[in-house]
Amino acid sequence: MSEFERIARLRALFEQPSADVQLGIGDDCAVLAPSAHPRVWTVDAAVAGVHFDLAFMAPGDVGYRAFMSAASDLAAMGARAVAALSSLVLPEAIGDRELDALAGGLARAAEACRCPIVGGNLARGHELSVTTSLLGECGARVVTRTGARPGELVYVSGPLGGAALGLALLSRGVQQPDAAACAAFLAPRARLDVAALLAAHASAAIDVSDGLHADLHHLCEASGVGARLELARIPTLPGFAALARQLGLDPLALIAGGGDDYELLFTAPAGVPAELGVAIGEVTREPEIVLLDAAGAPFAPGRAGFDHFR
Amino acid sequence: MSEFERIARLRALFEQPSADVQLGIGDDCAVLAPSAHPRVWTVDAAVAGVHFDLAFMAPGDVGYRAFMSAASDLAAMGARAVAALSSLVLPEAIGDRELDALAGGLARAAEACRCPIVGGNLARGHELSVTTSLLGECGARVVTRTGARPGELVYVSGPLGGAALGLALLSRGVQQPDAAACAAFLAPRARLDVAALLAAHASAAIDVSDGLHADLHHLCEASGVGARLELARIPTLPGFAALARQLGLDPLALIAGGGDDYELLFTAPAGVPAELGVAIGEVTREPEIVLLDAAGAPFAPGRAGFDHFR
Repeated sequence: MSEFERIARLRALFEQPSADVQLGIGDDCAVLAPSAHPRVWTVDAAVAGVHFDLAFMAPGDVGYRAFMSAASDLAAMGARAVAALSSLVLPEAIGDRELDALAGGLARAAEACRCPIVGGNLARGHELSVTTSLLGECGARVVTRTGARPGELVYVSGPLGGAALGLALLSRGVQQPDAAACAAFLAPRARLDVAALLAAHASAAIDVSDGLHADLHHLCEASGVGARLELARIPTLPGFAALARQLGLDPLALIAGGGDDYELLFTAPAGVPAELGVAIGEVTREPEIVLLDAAGAPFAPGRAGFDHFR
Repeated sequence: MSEFERIARLRALFEQPSADVQLGIGDDCAVLAPSAHPRVWTVDAAVAGVHFDLAFMAPGDVGYRAFMSAASDLAAMGARAVAALSSLVLPEAIGDRELDALAGGLARAAEACRCPIVGGNLARGHELSVTTSLLGECGARVVTRTGARPGELVYVSGPLGGAALGLALLSRGVQQPDAAACAAFLAPRARLDVAALLAAHASAAIDVSDGLHADLHHLCEASGVGARLELARIPTLPGFAALARQLGLDPLALIAGGGDDYELLFTAPAGVPAELGVAIGEVTREPEIVLLDAAGAPFAPGRAGFDHFR
């Protein structure tokens, strides 16, 4: 298929009705309706061999996961999704069938986020990459990383460590791997479902993409505070610890250091609704991060999140 | 430098004061002020070996050109620039010095477009790529590709063929190449300077990125019309035709088929201000594109624009 035939196919796959969109795929730019509220804007790239591996991921998983990891940044600001642009660099190995599957994954994720994909770019290259730019809109409040105050609690919106466990299972080629852990890695969900609740309650928030310890560090640094967490209070998938140990992995290291879960890590006064998250620690005045294990002993994560340049 | 040190350096380089921006680099998303007018949104990727070649381009040129080619899409809609996100995939060969130069090129282009870069993404990869997402804002009118009507004239905002000639000079390693032609390729300017005039006069517009013939085809197809152009009326750089022939290239083929000039191709009734563009032909009812040479004979471009997948 030519570039323009491919664009026509993507257009059919990506369009969703939306009051925010005046013009979708097909011109030099998409056109969005004026907005009465602040908009939030992010971009995220997923690169073959760095963020995903086609050896154990189908192209549809690549598209789904790439979109959700970008959309997660909107959730962390307490925003709803408005629209997305998808820029694909496609090596020759990605033929029409693989592109359809990849785009199908993008479209499924976009639909789950109620977010039309209104444009993008197709380019040839040697390395598959999926770059997603998303606009979101906030209501009365924009949640940033800077509002955490000593005495507040630290919360998380759902289980951590599952994606790192799933990646370990998939990359080692384990037969009959745990379905929930694999799904946590392959098909994470951006927590847009609780974004409005987050905006109503949280003083500061970030999504867990680099890993709990690293992302908590970002939030605390931006707010000028510290935090003390009890790792045993962090929710995990059923059977998580036993399965990690079977693989020779430290469950606490996966919880504290593993990224890619895309749950929301946030601070708020006590009394947050249970559907938004569970308290796992407290904000402290001293600007340091203390992680405690079940016995109350300090836990030092070996690896403080993923850094592309170390 | 670590990823986070690199982000801090880019932040210092990219920030510009802007009433549109409530929060720039440093959180999960940038935050933009509400808008009273429609916004236009685009993304463009520049990939090493496809869109540029570090063998004859400095990293600063790569950044500058990548930004301008993306910003050109805003100009084609008649919009002013609001803000940009820059997503970089960096191979190991791009060290701190090369990244500084690349980012310097992005920052110079962004400043020329009066467009703050408010966020982005850094990722490791094997292949250098620069993906730029831009938001623009229109005034009373959004210019699209669909408004051309038979009887109107076709205009171009400036010289064509120069970038293709410059690329030929650079890629062949010509000693003392023509400075204007090289600049047309290395440092194109997005025509944001005439975007407001375009919105006041044009019935339809597109930027010349794929090449005159291909882009005119896109515009005519979207409008359901055809066009007849006199190629001799198209402005070119001084000495263009003689220099092309010295290289064994057909000047008309460069004008009709060469892309990357980023001038605006548009339709309007007669009487467009000279600073916006010059008439080069007319819109026709018959949905075909006729290019005429200086003798009035039909000219068939050998290559109808760049297609990434042919």
